[in-house]
Amino acid sequence: MTDTVLSPELRALIGSGPLTHLTTINADGSPQVSVIWIGLDGGDLVSGHLGHYAKVRNVERDPRVVLSFLGPRDHGVTLNPYAVLHAHATVEPRDDTWDLLDQLTKVYQSPDDTFPAPRSPGWTIRYRVRRVGGVGPWA
Amino acid sequence: MTDTVLSPELRALIGSGPLTHLTTINADGSPQVSVIWIGLDGGDLVSGHLGHYAKVRNVERDPRVVLSFLGPRDHGVTLNPYAVLHAHATVEPRDDTWDLLDQLTKVYQSPDDTFPAPRSPGWTIRYRVRRVGGVGPWA
Repeated sequence: MTDTVLSPELRALIGSGPLTHLTTINADGSPQVSVIWIGLDGGDLVSGHLGHYAKVRNVERDPRVVLSFLGPRDHGVTLNPYAVLHAHATVEPRDDTWDLLDQLTKVYQSPDDTFPAPRSPGWTIRYRVRRVGGVGPWA
Repeated sequence: MTDTVLSPELRALIGSGPLTHLTTINADGSPQVSVIWIGLDGGDLVSGHLGHYAKVRNVERDPRVVLSFLGPRDHGVTLNPYAVLHAHATVEPRDDTWDLLDQLTKVYQSPDDTFPAPRSPGWTIRYRVRRVGGVGPWA
């Protein structure tokens, strides 16, 4: 069960809206990185994309991705907390991707904000987390 | 010249000490991510490592890496500034890696702090930045 992979401390950090580096693999084997919003969906993580971007196409070709994000910055420590989530990702074309993005807008921007792009179908990426690393109580 | 790749705004952000996600490629083609400190060295970037860690071995096998880090967090925008640096990385076994880490301690922790590990030789990774992406004045 992935629920055992995502500890309460890690779920709390994810729920706080950490800007997340999504690493995928390009066709030539080189790394591709974008910063995205992520949300919890049961034992999985999800992200929403209104375009069929390079990162989405990369996931369709190779599901091995990494999600990484920082814990709160602490200038008093040499190793700041951070999480590295190795996941198996799948792309789902969906009509409700915009709704996911709007939910995440409340977390990442402000409870009163609405996702600024026009409502449209999109692609939701689902992440089944296989292994957690980094520095912190989750690693 | 890489100097033209690193704009003044980007150099300022790097000089402020952003915790940086280093993505390398494992032998099986999957991504590997660690959070590291980085510094400017002329037109290049550098990082220091006192162990011959997986990321160092990965760079020795495949020099294609990505360095990614955030600009200041702004909850009023949908796309927070961030930088994605595609670089060609080389590993240099060096006697002065600890000194680099001690210099970076002044930036990332506090001007009065000393790098806490015992002085020893190490591995300095040098990054020749080829392309800059992300969101912000540098992208």
